[in-house]
Amino acid sequence: MSSYDELIAFERSTQALSEIAGRLGWDQETVMPPAATEQRAEEMAAIETVLHSRRTDPKVGDWLESVDGKELDEIGRANLRVIRRDFERTSRVPAELAAEIARATSLARDNWVQAREGENFAEFAPALKRVLDLRRQEAAAVADGGEPYDALLDDFEPGATASGVAEMFSALRPGLVALADRVLGAGHQPALPDHTFDEEIQVRFSREMAETFGYDFSHGRIDRAVHPFSSGSGLDVRITMRTDPRDPFNSIYSTIHETGHGAYEQGVSRKYLLTPVGQGASMGVHESQSRIYENQLGRSRAFTGHLFGRMQKLFGDFGVADSEAFYSVVNRVAPGYIRTEADELHYNLHIMMRFDLERDLISGALEVDDLPEAWNSRFETDFGVAVDRPSNGVLQDIHWASGLFGYFPTYTLGNVYAGCLHKVIRRDIPGLDGHLSKGDTAPATGWLRRNLQQHGSLREPAETITAACGFVPTVQPLLDYLEEKFTDLYRL
Amino acid sequence: MSSYDELIAFERSTQALSEIAGRLGWDQETVMPPAATEQRAEEMAAIETVLHSRRTDPKVGDWLESVDGKELDEIGRANLRVIRRDFERTSRVPAELAAEIARATSLARDNWVQAREGENFAEFAPALKRVLDLRRQEAAAVADGGEPYDALLDDFEPGATASGVAEMFSALRPGLVALADRVLGAGHQPALPDHTFDEEIQVRFSREMAETFGYDFSHGRIDRAVHPFSSGSGLDVRITMRTDPRDPFNSIYSTIHETGHGAYEQGVSRKYLLTPVGQGASMGVHESQSRIYENQLGRSRAFTGHLFGRMQKLFGDFGVADSEAFYSVVNRVAPGYIRTEADELHYNLHIMMRFDLERDLISGALEVDDLPEAWNSRFETDFGVAVDRPSNGVLQDIHWASGLFGYFPTYTLGNVYAGCLHKVIRRDIPGLDGHLSKGDTAPATGWLRRNLQQHGSLREPAETITAACGFVPTVQPLLDYLEEKFTDLYRL
Repeated sequence: MSSYDELIAFERSTQALSEIAGRLGWDQETVMPPAATEQRAEEMAAIETVLHSRRTDPKVGDWLESVDGKELDEIGRANLRVIRRDFERTSRVPAELAAEIARATSLARDNWVQAREGENFAEFAPALKRVLDLRRQEAAAVADGGEPYDALLDDFEPGATASGVAEMFSALRPGLVALADRVLGAGHQPALPDHTFDEEIQVRFSREMAETFGYDFSHGRIDRAVHPFSSGSGLDVRITMRTDPRDPFNSIYSTIHETGHGAYEQGVSRKYLLTPVGQGASMGVHESQSRIYENQLGRSRAFTGHLFGRMQKLFGDFGVADSEAFYSVVNRVAPGYIRTEADELHYNLHIMMRFDLERDLISGALEVDDLPEAWNSRFETDFGVAVDRPSNGVLQDIHWASGLFGYFPTYTLGNVYAGCLHKVIRRDIPGLDGHLSKGDTAPATGWLRRNLQQHGSLREPAETITAACGFVPTVQPLLDYLEEKFTDLYRL
Repeated sequence: MSSYDELIAFERSTQALSEIAGRLGWDQETVMPPAATEQRAEEMAAIETVLHSRRTDPKVGDWLESVDGKELDEIGRANLRVIRRDFERTSRVPAELAAEIARATSLARDNWVQAREGENFAEFAPALKRVLDLRRQEAAAVADGGEPYDALLDDFEPGATASGVAEMFSALRPGLVALADRVLGAGHQPALPDHTFDEEIQVRFSREMAETFGYDFSHGRIDRAVHPFSSGSGLDVRITMRTDPRDPFNSIYSTIHETGHGAYEQGVSRKYLLTPVGQGASMGVHESQSRIYENQLGRSRAFTGHLFGRMQKLFGDFGVADSEAFYSVVNRVAPGYIRTEADELHYNLHIMMRFDLERDLISGALEVDDLPEAWNSRFETDFGVAVDRPSNGVLQDIHWASGLFGYFPTYTLGNVYAGCLHKVIRRDIPGLDGHLSKGDTAPATGWLRRNLQQHGSLREPAETITAACGFVPTVQPLLDYLEEKFTDLYRL
């Protein structure tokens, strides 16, 4: 075997172990017995130690030195790029710190669930302090003098920086705020229908929606969990959903969203299975898939026409008169508390406040004890509404409990990318709305699979979007799309 | 830290990884997406490689040399005993062979499920040949000149040998065969009631039965699977069940059986969590728990009185007149095809034939292609009935697909141990039947927890039984129990 072949064989096993670790996370959120948390934390720490030791194994450094990149094809060079970045990054994190982060986040997730149920931030604060402290240590070790937050962000979005993100957010914010103000100023917004939606039917319908958007159940499954998420890559990609009897759009659109993530991983070329390029390119690119499935496709007038018909069939008359009224309901604009339920205009404002808060948490400008106050005050400023309870505020997201600092901005990055991809899809598929109105998403999802998903991490994240779109991504297509959609819908 | 403390810390992580590997097996049998098999095989191989490398790590050898056993308490010495045995055994198996076994059995399990559904042994034969070949290699490596089968058996039942098992089976067989002949000669056996039992109610009732026998759902769960099994130790012990609309006793008694396994692992003292002594002492001791729960307790006249009442409540009139008729039905004796559904007299005959067949498979006296014929011919000799299809014959058990050669005899060993334990429980709890008739198993399961389960692997398997019973186990108490039960039931 050549050095390259040896390196790839080693990385395949590492990736297989990483899939196992990911599935343990899935297990914990879906099927784990309630009192198994303490043991699970030990298990997570044990496998994280194994992964860390493999990722920093000096053998990997030796192989990286002895492989001649010029003798490799495009795929080989891409594998090397991913391995090298991972090796250099991980080698800066002490093994004990990596294990401790796995242990602490496994415990903190449990604390978060309980604190959220009990509406008691103080119950979660000690666990969050511990996680934050560990992530600060990790960020300082990796940043090596640069901005610590960048070190965390780079893990989810290779090549991105906090200052670059801040610049993009500044370009996006004024247009979003102005449009949201015009929409809210235009008067009455439709309310959710006053109806109770059977939760078992919601579960079944989620399955149908996942299938409608191309999710492959022979390589995946859907389960209920506190927080919707997607997990795994290759041949075993699982998604979760939750139900709300008063708001079926919660389960429907979060399922379509997670389907975007899941279909991306399922769509990566099989020839990359368990290799470094065999996963999605970044969280931002991932989010471009989940958001375009959810919004540009799932919340389009054409698709909501199909959706309205299906829901009438399943739930009977639920108090919405016709498909145009239905289109307004699923695109109602309101400064709500919950990020995952936010409309397309407010969603990015949720992200921007989390980005600023977590950047301050990592830098030390903000401490955990002051976080609820900082959250509430910023929310009232940006959304004009006071937070009524922690589960509608600082306790709504699982991310920080999971140690995911630097993850939130990738959501907005994904929205921006989705705007770019949508512009090109509309150009390439002139009859798209005709398909969507019949519930046929295949022309659009097939385009995404061919032009983006199949390539996995073959290219850098931003290049992945550039290659699919044919231009360097900017915020303008997203702003144009929102302007056109909402001025039409609200006759502004 | 002392060498001992370092060793135990290392072993705790190894055990945590072993729990993860076990849970992957659970996942594959219960929730894994159907087409994920190929990737799962890679994952199993990867974690098995990690486990093998830890179990054979020269550091373990160094620690074992530097620890002074005389300075340790009983628990410490027991931990050393388990670690040393595991280290010496595993060090003889090449890492690549261990990984290949994990990969091959992961694939073979899937082949087995499909071949069993299709009633086609030929579809399973190549996978079984591969698994058998690998296990033969392993047995030869570990046996180091002794009988290869002993090397496999010892992994499930430390200290046991094929010749010792054969001797015990010879002592047991004549009494069993004679009693079975007398029972079958006594005339008509009650049939299963001609009734269809709602499968969803069976699932719910399985949960109730598990609870009745002390299974702790805060540290476990029950799911449907092709084959009932128990998996995991410590704080996360899971069991599975299956339903048959025509035979509710299948789900009820296999659940009580798996509850015995699960409750044993859940009952091990928390102070042993994730340490070498923190699991059941052996498969034979395990089976003593599952079988005493299922048979001596669950099929007693007293408990079946309670069970009859509950089933009438849940399923309505299902065609059994009274509790005495019900007692006959759940203790009906018949030379049936399926081991897991066998009565207490025929069960051990199922084991004896599997023991002889697999001993021949490992020695090379029997090859896979000749296995169906050997199975069918032996079955007809022992049971007087011709096998009608592979799922009722050679394809009925998952064990060989999982590479579990040397496992079957531990079932009968467990029955023998259960006979001994039952004799002592009856002596210590004179009013036991009064409790059982009210569905209260706690006096008996509590006795087992205090006298046996809590100690985990503190003692060698046979010593574990001897310590609980106060005498060295023999086949006589089991034969006495069966004689008394069936001569009474059939008025012989």
